[in-house]
Amino acid sequence: MIQEIIKKIPPVKPEFAEKAQKRLDSLTKPQGSLGRLEEFARRLVAITESTMPLIDKKVIFTFAGDHGVVEEGVSAYPGEVTKQMVFNFLRGGAGINVLARHAGAEVVVVDIGVKGELGEVAGLVSKKVVSGTGNIRKGHAMTKHDAARCIEVGIKLAEDYAIKGYKLFGTGEMGIGNTTPSSAIAAVVTGKPVSEVTGKGTGIGDEVWKNKIKVIEDAISINKPDTSDPLDVLSKIGGAEIGGIAGLIIGAAAHRIPVVIDGFISTAGALIAYCLEPKTKDYMFAAHNSVEIGHKAMLDKMGLHPILDLNLRLGEGTGAALAMLIIEAGLKIYK
Amino acid sequence: MIQEIIKKIPPVKPEFAEKAQKRLDSLTKPQGSLGRLEEFARRLVAITESTMPLIDKKVIFTFAGDHGVVEEGVSAYPGEVTKQMVFNFLRGGAGINVLARHAGAEVVVVDIGVKGELGEVAGLVSKKVVSGTGNIRKGHAMTKHDAARCIEVGIKLAEDYAIKGYKLFGTGEMGIGNTTPSSAIAAVVTGKPVSEVTGKGTGIGDEVWKNKIKVIEDAISINKPDTSDPLDVLSKIGGAEIGGIAGLIIGAAAHRIPVVIDGFISTAGALIAYCLEPKTKDYMFAAHNSVEIGHKAMLDKMGLHPILDLNLRLGEGTGAALAMLIIEAGLKIYK
Repeated sequence: MIQEIIKKIPPVKPEFAEKAQKRLDSLTKPQGSLGRLEEFARRLVAITESTMPLIDKKVIFTFAGDHGVVEEGVSAYPGEVTKQMVFNFLRGGAGINVLARHAGAEVVVVDIGVKGELGEVAGLVSKKVVSGTGNIRKGHAMTKHDAARCIEVGIKLAEDYAIKGYKLFGTGEMGIGNTTPSSAIAAVVTGKPVSEVTGKGTGIGDEVWKNKIKVIEDAISINKPDTSDPLDVLSKIGGAEIGGIAGLIIGAAAHRIPVVIDGFISTAGALIAYCLEPKTKDYMFAAHNSVEIGHKAMLDKMGLHPILDLNLRLGEGTGAALAMLIIEAGLKIYK
Repeated sequence: MIQEIIKKIPPVKPEFAEKAQKRLDSLTKPQGSLGRLEEFARRLVAITESTMPLIDKKVIFTFAGDHGVVEEGVSAYPGEVTKQMVFNFLRGGAGINVLARHAGAEVVVVDIGVKGELGEVAGLVSKKVVSGTGNIRKGHAMTKHDAARCIEVGIKLAEDYAIKGYKLFGTGEMGIGNTTPSSAIAAVVTGKPVSEVTGKGTGIGDEVWKNKIKVIEDAISINKPDTSDPLDVLSKIGGAEIGGIAGLIIGAAAHRIPVVIDGFISTAGALIAYCLEPKTKDYMFAAHNSVEIGHKAMLDKMGLHPILDLNLRLGEGTGAALAMLIIEAGLKIYK
């Protein structure tokens, strides 16, 4: 199913971007004087193949998942916090709720890999593929079959919300420990040493950070992910929410929907999508430059340049919400 | 009058920022994880001395003025364009109108130094001090008395809008040729060579740029502005809109109102305010990092760090409008 959808992703044609730039150049302002706002407008026109794109309905998907590797002491928080934060999102009390409201976007909270049962909770989209991943220091995060299912969950959500008429997607995530698989993916895909793409997550000390690097190095040497096979990488050292994000991006691209990539973990998901099909990159907007040191290496790999640089490191989709406001500003100027 | 208002500027007390940070740290998120959004919230609390600041009414002041130095061939546009753009602002058809609407801010267009008469135009705030400045390559931009009057116009506008209940100000400007006096101010105040703080404005070629540098060097050597006297600098090598912006900032600070500084020219105005009274800096938010190369030197001089970096070089207040959206996001998180 994944390969079928990937085949449907249309190339983003430069003709439409050129048409958009012509219009921008006809406005009463010095040519190019609105810098990246013009770039955003051009890209929206090219992605949608509409000379007058409409962005009325926006949605941010916050995928939640747990990580077996937390037992290695890589995070400042216990795994149970993932579940608590999911409930917090559904109550509307988290950072992403505030910033999505500010940006006029809805938030869709997806349980794709939270450990244990969350029960019937109003508003929660239950698409659980795994009940937390396995500890990647000891073996695979999940089976290849489950990794594919995670991607399919994302693709299906993209399709559902495309049909519902949403015009701009954002990615977000919640998962205690998920900077660890994200750094592992960053190291493997960019070829950089683990120590250069591993940061301090939500705020660990130097000792824990050194241990985190060792854990990731072990995870890579034990699992031997095959970099020529993105699904292998995702299943061995990834996470459920990372797979969901990759799928969402693939589905968005297949429906010509621009997608705003939040921070470090979302970009790991974007990198999986990019490795599966580089054309997906042309549908992505990189929201911001995260504090996490490995973020830039992944963005560089895809040739993406972040919109904001505000020292954010919360995740959830918060950076994506803010970036949506700036992207829309570009479109309004164009119109 | 200026000195009286300056004396009224209260210091921004760290206690309020600390109180705000305590509240931020009590939210359900890792401490500090919202980076600069937290900084913006802290500063708004400290500036307003309110633990729950309200930003409902926002306004961007776009000061317009002409520059005699245009006859030296320093700009890509003829001076008449200033007037045309003022009419465009009042019709609501310019970049600043679009972005201010996007940010929920009003635009106030002020004729402080446009050459010739604009007549009775609905919506225009007529506060003309000079009918264009003198050519700074040949003499003073304006008299010291007129420079003081420009600052007073800004102070009075700040007072009027403070009384009307506006809670956040932004600065903006329009004036063909006004990167030339701004670069002159940047060079004189930061002590950097003219060539290091002079850019290509709205898009001049290399030859015109070299001439622009020469013109500014001549202007400085002919006028010999006294760097210990900001009013002397403003009157000799400045501009009316630059003075208006300086005054607006001083007035904002005197009324504890945060003020968002747009780009290069606005920052030249901010620098004059800062030289008159360094405390004004604590009321400023630097909206963005302009393409103009001298911008960073001025921001560094004041210790300000821009919020956005989008390669903008339009002015008008466009960057201030966008930055307002991000500053408000910080406040919403805090609340």
